[in-house]
Amino acid sequence: MIKGLTRAGIGNVGSIEAFVKAAAAHGFGAVSAGGQELEEWIASQGASAVRAFLQEHGVQIATIGLSAQWRTTEEEFVSGLGRLIQDAEAAAAAGCTVCSTYVLPSTDHDAATFTVQATRRLRTCAQLLAPYGIRLAIEFVGPHHLRTRWKHPFIWGLQETVDWIDAIGERNVGLLFDSYHWYTNELGVEDIVRLDASQIVLAHINDAPDLPIAEVLDNDRLFPGEGVIDLAGFLRGLKQIGYSGVVAQEILTPKPLEQSSEQLLQRSREAFRKVYTAAGLQ
Amino acid sequence: MIKGLTRAGIGNVGSIEAFVKAAAAHGFGAVSAGGQELEEWIASQGASAVRAFLQEHGVQIATIGLSAQWRTTEEEFVSGLGRLIQDAEAAAAAGCTVCSTYVLPSTDHDAATFTVQATRRLRTCAQLLAPYGIRLAIEFVGPHHLRTRWKHPFIWGLQETVDWIDAIGERNVGLLFDSYHWYTNELGVEDIVRLDASQIVLAHINDAPDLPIAEVLDNDRLFPGEGVIDLAGFLRGLKQIGYSGVVAQEILTPKPLEQSSEQLLQRSREAFRKVYTAAGLQ
Amino acid sequence: MIKGLTRAGIGNVGSIEAFVKAAAAHGFGAVSAGGQELEEWIASQGASAVRAFLQEHGVQIATIGLSAQWRTTEEEFVSGLGRLIQDAEAAAAAGCTVCSTYVLPSTDHDAATFTVQATRRLRTCAQLLAPYGIRLAIEFVGPHHLRTRWKHPFIWGLQETVDWIDAIGERNVGLLFDSYHWYTNELGVEDIVRLDASQIVLAHINDAPDLPIAEVLDNDRLFPGEGVIDLAGFLRGLKQIGYSGVVAQEILTPKPLEQSSEQLLQRSREAFRKVYTAAGLQ
Amino acid sequence: MIKGLTRAGIGNVGSIEAFVKAAAAHGFGAVSAGGQELEEWIASQGASAVRAFLQEHGVQIATIGLSAQWRTTEEEFVSGLGRLIQDAEAAAAAGCTVCSTYVLPSTDHDAATFTVQATRRLRTCAQLLAPYGIRLAIEFVGPHHLRTRWKHPFIWGLQETVDWIDAIGERNVGLLFDSYHWYTNELGVEDIVRLDASQIVLAHINDAPDLPIAEVLDNDRLFPGEGVIDLAGFLRGLKQIGYSGVVAQEILTPKPLEQSSEQLLQRSREAFRKVYTAAGLQ
Repeated sequence: MIKGLTRAGIGNVGSIEAFVKAAAAHGFGAVSAGGQELEEWIASQGASAVRAFLQEHGVQIATIGLSAQWRTTEEEFVSGLGRLIQDAEAAAAAGCTVCSTYVLPSTDHDAATFTVQATRRLRTCAQLLAPYGIRLAIEFVGPHHLRTRWKHPFIWGLQETVDWIDAIGERNVGLLFDSYHWYTNELGVEDIVRLDASQIVLAHINDAPDLPIAEVLDNDRLFPGEGVIDLAGFLRGLKQIGYSGVVAQEILTPKPLEQSSEQLLQRSREAFRKVYTAAGLQ
Repeated sequence: MIKGLTRAGIGNVGSIEAFVKAAAAHGFGAVSAGGQELEEWIASQGASAVRAFLQEHGVQIATIGLSAQWRTTEEEFVSGLGRLIQDAEAAAAAGCTVCSTYVLPSTDHDAATFTVQATRRLRTCAQLLAPYGIRLAIEFVGPHHLRTRWKHPFIWGLQETVDWIDAIGERNVGLLFDSYHWYTNELGVEDIVRLDASQIVLAHINDAPDLPIAEVLDNDRLFPGEGVIDLAGFLRGLKQIGYSGVVAQEILTPKPLEQSSEQLLQRSREAFRKVYTAAGLQ
Repeated sequence: MIKGLTRAGIGNVGSIEAFVKAAAAHGFGAVSAGGQELEEWIASQGASAVRAFLQEHGVQIATIGLSAQWRTTEEEFVSGLGRLIQDAEAAAAAGCTVCSTYVLPSTDHDAATFTVQATRRLRTCAQLLAPYGIRLAIEFVGPHHLRTRWKHPFIWGLQETVDWIDAIGERNVGLLFDSYHWYTNELGVEDIVRLDASQIVLAHINDAPDLPIAEVLDNDRLFPGEGVIDLAGFLRGLKQIGYSGVVAQEILTPKPLEQSSEQLLQRSREAFRKVYTAAGLQ
Repeated sequence: MIKGLTRAGIGNVGSIEAFVKAAAAHGFGAVSAGGQELEEWIASQGASAVRAFLQEHGVQIATIGLSAQWRTTEEEFVSGLGRLIQDAEAAAAAGCTVCSTYVLPSTDHDAATFTVQATRRLRTCAQLLAPYGIRLAIEFVGPHHLRTRWKHPFIWGLQETVDWIDAIGERNVGLLFDSYHWYTNELGVEDIVRLDASQIVLAHINDAPDLPIAEVLDNDRLFPGEGVIDLAGFLRGLKQIGYSGVVAQEILTPKPLEQSSEQLLQRSREAFRKVYTAAGLQ
C-alpha cells in the first residue's frame, strides 16, 4: 500500500512540483492534485516531462477531485462537464487513474429526489471518466454532527454506499475508504475483510481525538497514530483483502496548523511509520 | 387509443376468459391480468388457443402486475424473481408487452437508502423483462393523504418519476400515467404535451369527486366523466403527443360497488363513450 | 414531419446563417450543422441571439455530425471526446437535440473486434451526449458496392442496426433512417410500420436512379421524386407510426451539381412538394 | 488460490456428493457443478444440509455452467432464461458465486451480427445472475484449429475478451482464464501481471503436449506439470496480482482416460502438488 499525501495537514507546500518533491523527500509515493492544476502543469512542461518528473521522484498522482458540481442544479452540473473532460484528459496524461468525491450525510433537498439526481449525475461522471481509464471514488462521511447538519438524512454508511455504487451501476465506481468515517460509523476490521479489494479505489487514513464517537467532528482530525482509531487494524484489514493502492492522510483541522510545512511533513512521515509498523507493514 | 378495463370497478366477472368476453361485449379492446393467471390459462389451453381467443374477441392483455416485491427486504425481492420470469414468459406467450407497478408516495424506510434499493431493484426487474419484449410501467401516485401516510416522503410527481426512470436507466421503462394522479398533482394539459409518447407505457383514466384536491382519497374514485377531472383535456393531450396505447379505468372504491357486473360494465362503456366524445375521439 | 436540408445537394450557400436564411426562404424548417460551426456562431453572436435568429426564421438545427472518430484507434477516439463535449454544449445552446453518424457496411478490421470496439465507443458517445438532452442517430448504409469495398462485412441492415442499438444499450440512441438505404436494402413500407416512432431519431429522403439495386451507388443520388424509390410509401410509413421529426435530403453526387444554389434550392423545394403531396401530407 | 476440479479428467466419480467427497479426499477445495444438478441436490436434501455438507468437506462449488444457449436463435436463448434463474437460485443456495461459459473462436454466423447478439445476450445473462450475487466468467479459447473450424473468425485473445467484457458493460462479468488458452495465444507472465485480480473470476490450469503451438488441439490436454506450459509462471502471475479464487483443472481428451477415477484423482493431486510447488505456493 502506497503512502500518500493530500494538501490537508502539511501547510502550504507551494506548486504541484514542489508538493511532489516534498512528498518524495519524506517517503511518500503519492499525492492528490487538482485537475486544472495538472492541466496547467502539462500545458507548461509537456506531458512527457510531467510523467518523467513524477517517475524520477517515485511519486504518482493518486487522485484528482471531482470538479463537476453534482449536488445542486442540473444547469450547474451540466455546465461543469466540459471542465470534467479537461480534468480527465490531464489526469490521464499524468498517469492518474482516480477521481474522487465525498458525500455529505445530510441534505436540504428532498432525500428521494436528491438520491435520484445524484445517482444519475454520478453515473454520468463515471461514464465520462471511463474512456480515460479513470475510476470514480466515492467517500462516505461518518461524523454524527453532519448527519443532522442539513434537513434530511442522506447516505453515510459503508453498506449503504456499496449499495449506492451498485445502483449507480458503472464498472469504474468504487469506494474512497477513510479510516475516520470507518471509525465514526463504528465499524470494525470484520467489516473491511468482507469487502473485495476491487471495491476500494482509494483509502484515507486519519486519526480522531478521544471523545465520545457522536462528538467527533469532521474537521478536527489528528495525524495517524496520534489518536484513538485502530489504524493498525484498519491497515491490516486492507492488506488482508489484497488492497494495494494509495493510503493518504487528509488532516482537516478547525484552524491552520501552526508548525511549518517541513515540520508537518516530518510529523506525517513519522505518523505513517508508526501505524505501518503497528500493522506489520514494511 | 385503446379502451381498457382493469378488474377494479366491474365487480366479479369471473375467469380471465370471462373477463375478456365481457370486455369485448362492452366495447373494450384491452384488459389487465395477473402473470400467474395467464400462466395457468396457457397451461390449460395452450398458447396458440389463448392468442386465438384474444384475437377473436379483439382484446389484448394490456399489462400484468409486477409480482416481484421491490419495497421490502432484499431476500423477499430476490425470492420473487423466479416468479417474475414465469410471468414474463406467460405474458409474452399471450402477446402482452407491459408489466406495471405503482409507487407509494411515502415510506417508513429511510428515503435515501430506499431510493437506492428501489432504483436497483426496478432496474433488475426491467432487465429481466427486456428479453421477453416487455416494458416496465411505473405509476406515480398523487393523492395527498398517502404522502404523509408513512414516515418519509418518497416520489409522487410526474417530473420526479421521469427523472427516476432516467436514473433507473433501462430502455424499456416508462410511465403508467393515471389521470387521477395527474389531477392530484395539479398538473395540466401543458404538462402532458411536454412528454414524448414513447415515455408513456400505459394510461389509466379515473375521475375524482368534487372535493379540495388535498382531500381526494386514492381509493375513492369515480367512473370517467362522473367527476371533476378534465378527462377530455387528458385524452386530448395524450392524443396530441401521439400516444396510441391502452387507456384503462381502475375504479378503486372504499367498499364494493353495489351494482351488478353487467351494470358496471355498461356504466364503464358509457363513461368511456362520454369522455372520448368530449375529447373529440372516435 | 419537418422538411429539412443538409448541405449536400444545394451548392455552396455560405455561412450557417446564410444556410438558415436560404432554407427558410425555400420552405424548409430544419438544417444540419457542424458542432464547431455552431460553437463559433454562438461565440460570435451569443446563444440567445442564435436561438432568436433560428426562431425568427422558423428553422431548427436538425442535427450535428458526430465528430468523435469511433472507427480507428482508441487513442484517436479518446482524443476527440473533448471536442464532442464542446459540440454537445453548442448544440444544446442552439436547441439542437440530435447528433448523427453513419455506419460503413464493411471494414478492414476484424469484424468481431471492430464490433466490440464500435459498440463501446458509440455507447460512450451516447453517454456524453445524454446530459445535454441530445440523442445519437445511427445511420445504416445500404448500397451494395460498399458492402465489399473493405475486407469484412459489417452492418448494413435495418434489423441488424436495431439489434446493435439494443446492444449499445443507452436510452438516447436510435436510427437515422434514410430512404436510400431502405431502398438498397430492398425493404418495404411494412418494414417501417413495424417500427415505433421513438426508434427513429432522424430521417433522410433521397432518390435513386433506375438501375438494378445492386448497382446503385451511394454517391449517385437523385432529388426526391426524380428517381424510382417509393418515397410516398416511405413518408406514409413514417407518418403512420407517428414520426414527427425532421426529414432531410442529402444529395450525394459524384461531382458537384452544375446548377446555382438558388436553382438547387428551388429544385429541392419542388422535390419535397412533389413527394409530400404524393404521400398525402400537407 | 484454491485447488479445484472439474469432472473432465477424473473418470466417472458419480453423484455431486460423491464428487465433493472425492475432491476433499484428494486435497481439493472446489468442484464445478451443473445448475440443475445443484437444484436436484437441494430439492432432495435441503439447502442447509447441502451447505453443511460442503462446509464439512471443505469444498466449495466453484462454478455452474451457463445453461442459456446464447450462440443460436433468439427463441432458443429466451426459452432458456427460466432455467437460468433456477440455476442461479440453486447456485446461490449452495454458496456458489460463479457461472461460466466459453467462447468458440470462430462462427458460421456473420461475425458482426453475431457479436451484436452475443453482446446483448451475455449482458442479459449477467443481469439475471447479478441479484443472486453471481458473477459471469467468460473463457476465451485459444487453440488454432478452432479459429478456422467455422466460417468467420470470432474472439480468441485475452485483450479482445477484456474489451468485449467492457462492451458487455456489467459489473459482474470477468474472465475465466485457462492456462491452455493463455499458452495457445502465446502470452507470457507479463500479460497476466498487467491484469487486475478483479478481472479474473475463475482460473483453469491444464497442460499441453510438446507440439508446435499451431498444432495443439483443444481436446488433447495433459495434466498440470505433464506438458510444456510454464504453469509455475502462470500461477506466480496470478498470485502476484492477488488472485485468490479457484484454479481448476479440466482435462479434455480425445477419448476417455483408461485409469480408474481413484488413479486419476491421485494423478490430479500430484499434478497440482508439482506445479504449486514449482510456483512457490504451499
